[in-house]
Amino acid sequence: MADTLRLSLEEAQLLAARALRAAGADEAMARATAAALVGAEAEGQGGHGLSRVAMYAEFLREGRAKGDAQPRILHERPGTALIDAGNGLAFAALALAEAEAEHRARACGIACVAVTNSHHAGAMSLPVRRLAEKGLVGLAFTNSPYAMPVPGGRSPLLGTNPVAAAFPRRDAAAPIVIDLALSAVARGKIMVAAKQGQPIPEGWALDAEGQPTTDPKAALDGAMLALGGPKGAALALMVELLCVALGGAAFAFEADSFFAPSPNPPRLGQLLIAIDPGGLAGQAVFLDRIEAMVTAMLDDPDVRLPGARREALRTQAAEDGLSLPQAMVEQLRALAGD
Amino acid sequence: MADTLRLSLEEAQLLAARALRAAGADEAMARATAAALVGAEAEGQGGHGLSRVAMYAEFLREGRAKGDAQPRILHERPGTALIDAGNGLAFAALALAEAEAEHRARACGIACVAVTNSHHAGAMSLPVRRLAEKGLVGLAFTNSPYAMPVPGGRSPLLGTNPVAAAFPRRDAAAPIVIDLALSAVARGKIMVAAKQGQPIPEGWALDAEGQPTTDPKAALDGAMLALGGPKGAALALMVELLCVALGGAAFAFEADSFFAPSPNPPRLGQLLIAIDPGGLAGQAVFLDRIEAMVTAMLDDPDVRLPGARREALRTQAAEDGLSLPQAMVEQLRALAGD
Repeated sequence: MADTLRLSLEEAQLLAARALRAAGADEAMARATAAALVGAEAEGQGGHGLSRVAMYAEFLREGRAKGDAQPRILHERPGTALIDAGNGLAFAALALAEAEAEHRARACGIACVAVTNSHHAGAMSLPVRRLAEKGLVGLAFTNSPYAMPVPGGRSPLLGTNPVAAAFPRRDAAAPIVIDLALSAVARGKIMVAAKQGQPIPEGWALDAEGQPTTDPKAALDGAMLALGGPKGAALALMVELLCVALGGAAFAFEADSFFAPSPNPPRLGQLLIAIDPGGLAGQAVFLDRIEAMVTAMLDDPDVRLPGARREALRTQAAEDGLSLPQAMVEQLRALAGD
Repeated sequence: MADTLRLSLEEAQLLAARALRAAGADEAMARATAAALVGAEAEGQGGHGLSRVAMYAEFLREGRAKGDAQPRILHERPGTALIDAGNGLAFAALALAEAEAEHRARACGIACVAVTNSHHAGAMSLPVRRLAEKGLVGLAFTNSPYAMPVPGGRSPLLGTNPVAAAFPRRDAAAPIVIDLALSAVARGKIMVAAKQGQPIPEGWALDAEGQPTTDPKAALDGAMLALGGPKGAALALMVELLCVALGGAAFAFEADSFFAPSPNPPRLGQLLIAIDPGGLAGQAVFLDRIEAMVTAMLDDPDVRLPGARREALRTQAAEDGLSLPQAMVEQLRALAGD
């Protein structure tokens, strides 16, 4: 492959962290962010990977993300904690949330941690997968700036509102990891159609007047639609209320779009839930049941376990490093001041 | 309206309880079941209402539901409990789950209760709405006998797997209640199309060979599809694993269909989660945030709050009682031995 460069995960992480430091992130925020972006990149989730460094650097320079924010626990009970991300980038706060969810779930059987005054949360598969690698069921939700209407509505009040879930498996088998946004399709698909001048199917989007459209350009000025019609929109509303109301964060409709410059921190919210199977039917029963479903699923040769592709890419990246477009590496180096 | 009879909620509940007692349910199971069925009927959820008494009576007579089962807690931690429904009808166990979820959530901030060896769970909006009326966010999940394939699959491994969520509102305002099955449409819609000889849209079902079909009769022999394609199927898998693996229940593909006689208890699973906003940003912030979303939603005259229609029907039924088809009342009376 011409025009690509191979970097080890460590090299990529250091380079990304230096670029973020140069834009004003303190050491802890730069490290946590770089680790999350490289983690997503390694899983093949390029949209949440190193391509985000430039955007985050702009947020930091605009003051839309505070480079010196220190995540802290505002309130707690045995099974819950509220974390203030202080309008920094989300990842240091999410790492704290993950640690809090883990130890509280071991004590109580279940725990939930809300993150408020937070930011773009990237690949939510990462924290839930790590919880599952430690034997816990992980669930994660986040909102995002305004993108989709509520059921029956026309204007975009909700984010695309990803849902991530991870379930441990026996021995060294990789967890089952589900990670999906509740939009019918990713915004990127509509952007590709707009570039190619192709119509989009009905059910993907509304125009600026809130009418169904098959014109991708009209769709980009309007609202995306949830998967599966009003039911999917109701699920997205559920996620929005869980992420925002419990932690006191900002709703999607209160956050400026990430696709235009803004000085305003988005104050988004995330919710992380960890459940210890040991507090219910016990690890042995739980792992048996998971394997029974895995066996039934893999009986069909067309079925792949959710997360298996990402896991294979992650294993490969750990061995071989990342193959990155030369232009991206050069941009990262320029941002880092090399 | 000819051919309908008006019964007060109390009359309907007593009649249903007597019919269930006559089929072998003990007093506690009969009462809990009748209360749930009348509650669903009052909310306009006829499919989970009194029409189910005949089916439940058959389960009890077949031994497919144990009339003398006593729900009991098998295992617990501060924030979790595992309840064995003992292969009885689900509702006494669900009532215990609701009470356990409530008091554990107040202590820990969040709680989760799994119900195993359970049965048809009816309207999951009921327990979450009651939790929300007490100031807690309620989430409920159940599986059901085999109905839908996993993502990419052909055979029905998953139930239709409803998700219910309720969020408290300020003062006496009724909670926001979301309650939806993850199937693209209810099975009843396919049955209606089959009766009328009308084709069904693509995306609703597969035939017995696992191929997409627009023939409703072929669909009834095959599998229903999740809303929104593979993403919806992934959500249904998530719900299946939450309901079943944590509590050690039976998967959808291990349970006999409710549409044919069987001596086998389905051993289904439910999961109930309660979250106390007081353990996160606090009740005042939470209720403010909920009202901010409600205001934004109702700014669009076409938008109704989820659960509002059910709530209006419920209020009306509390005043006026239920207007029931005469044939249904006669069937209930016959089952009760009147």
